[in-house]
Amino acid sequence: MSKLDPVRLYLTGLQQGITSAIEAVDGSAFLVDTWSKAAHEPLQGQGVTCILENGAVFERAGCGFSHVRGRSLPPSATQHRPELAGAPFEAMGVSLVFHPRNPYLPTVHMNVRMLAAKTHDGMEVCWFGGGMDLTPFYAFEEDAVHFHGVCRTALQPFGDDKYPRFKTWCDEYFYLKHRQEQRGIGGVFFDDFAELGFEPSFDMMRAVGDAFLGAYLPIVERRKATPYTEREREFQLYRRGRYVEFNLVWDRGTHFGLQSGGRTESILLSMPPLVSWSYQRTDPPGSPEDDLTKKFLVRREWV
Amino acid sequence: MSKLDPVRLYLTGLQQGITSAIEAVDGSAFLVDTWSKAAHEPLQGQGVTCILENGAVFERAGCGFSHVRGRSLPPSATQHRPELAGAPFEAMGVSLVFHPRNPYLPTVHMNVRMLAAKTHDGMEVCWFGGGMDLTPFYAFEEDAVHFHGVCRTALQPFGDDKYPRFKTWCDEYFYLKHRQEQRGIGGVFFDDFAELGFEPSFDMMRAVGDAFLGAYLPIVERRKATPYTEREREFQLYRRGRYVEFNLVWDRGTHFGLQSGGRTESILLSMPPLVSWSYQRTDPPGSPEDDLTKKFLVRREWV
Repeated sequence: MSKLDPVRLYLTGLQQGITSAIEAVDGSAFLVDTWSKAAHEPLQGQGVTCILENGAVFERAGCGFSHVRGRSLPPSATQHRPELAGAPFEAMGVSLVFHPRNPYLPTVHMNVRMLAAKTHDGMEVCWFGGGMDLTPFYAFEEDAVHFHGVCRTALQPFGDDKYPRFKTWCDEYFYLKHRQEQRGIGGVFFDDFAELGFEPSFDMMRAVGDAFLGAYLPIVERRKATPYTEREREFQLYRRGRYVEFNLVWDRGTHFGLQSGGRTESILLSMPPLVSWSYQRTDPPGSPEDDLTKKFLVRREWV
Repeated sequence: MSKLDPVRLYLTGLQQGITSAIEAVDGSAFLVDTWSKAAHEPLQGQGVTCILENGAVFERAGCGFSHVRGRSLPPSATQHRPELAGAPFEAMGVSLVFHPRNPYLPTVHMNVRMLAAKTHDGMEVCWFGGGMDLTPFYAFEEDAVHFHGVCRTALQPFGDDKYPRFKTWCDEYFYLKHRQEQRGIGGVFFDDFAELGFEPSFDMMRAVGDAFLGAYLPIVERRKATPYTEREREFQLYRRGRYVEFNLVWDRGTHFGLQSGGRTESILLSMPPLVSWSYQRTDPPGSPEDDLTKKFLVRREWV
């Protein structure tokens, strides 16, 4: 048994737990699509893409597990680790993006992942990464506080520094430079993490994955029946454009995946079901729509 | 008078001519937004962004002129011209993307541009670029033949080789590698062009700009009243997702613009007004929707 087996087992179980819970909330089932990539492709491996479209609560909810092997780490992955340039690697993770229908419900993203590579002298090196972040369309202070509180509590056992570090990392990562806007109210994000050693780093990744439902579902329950009109719906479609812009222009995972021959439909499960663009939309000063980016989607301490 | 003045004059006139013609077809007016970027920003310069949203024929039609100066050519622009690395430059162009409402009308893109830079010993070097390409949602052989025919005729005076070269270049450029799909039925595309000398190269760029209305408007007239149902509309929204994917993931101009501090809303006038994504959409074999990518959006000789 490889030391990666428990990671795989954890990840597939996490995917099952999350999709079951979402099915219970939504009343619709995920489509479960098991795929594999043959050995002659740039990446080989398998995955399970779960997708729920046109649900009662979720307009599009994707949750994917993948486990791929590659002959040679891409340069983007070894900038800070020249000793691993070109090393064979193995990567696995669970990634999800849920786009609710009701504009008062925030979009959410969570990802936990592990990368293992072998150095030239046969040493196996593993790093972990992960995080979750929330993208609301309307400002609810208590939702942001709750979400960040759950993130902080989950990371507490791994040291007082983890939440503040990963919270800042998240704010810096999910930033649309071309708009000078945060994508949402953040959460936590970490990458290339191995500093605690294999087992505790794996535990930390697991803590983030396990915290997801507790961070998000209470917000879903609280907001899912909020009545809304065409006005909020239009604003939601417009703001979803920012999500697309971030993911396709700035997100390293998406870019690397699409350019390196990853499975397009699984990578793009993050795309919203319906999106609009319009030129320089402006909202009345003081309206909730105008306040969103000016007052709510700003870097601040939530807990 | 600089030798760039006639280029600027041509480009502003081209923008006016095209937007007037589109207004006449649509019955709505473009919003004309004149902007400038101050000297302390990474790029300085001015532009005129014309945008028509929610028109009778065009759901979103953007046509922008811009003229910018920069202190130093970005590395991406000097890969093949190391002698110009870091040289001050000037760029101007007209770029348009029109998204019609009727799914039987194709989306169209046209761009003409000029770049001038000064070498260390004070020599001014100019290149031209340009092209136009068509992205249909439903296959009409005669539209593709007409569009390519106009492109070929426009380039004929500049040598027999120009249309075939630029047609191939267009097919290669507007290709979604992650989907293994062409963006549309192509047209022509050229870049870094100076081989004929300044005046004839400028003439060639002008020939492309001047050919645009004749290439596109007859197709608009022919298709704009075609009745359609929710089925065609849904397919159009879905296919527009490919347009977004190409522009945000692969288009060098968009990427360079967004990452280098260009004017976001002017760069993103290429985005469709409304777009959808869905997981692995499949259409009945033999349906027009299924045939589009399999039979129509393939590299072939149209004229």
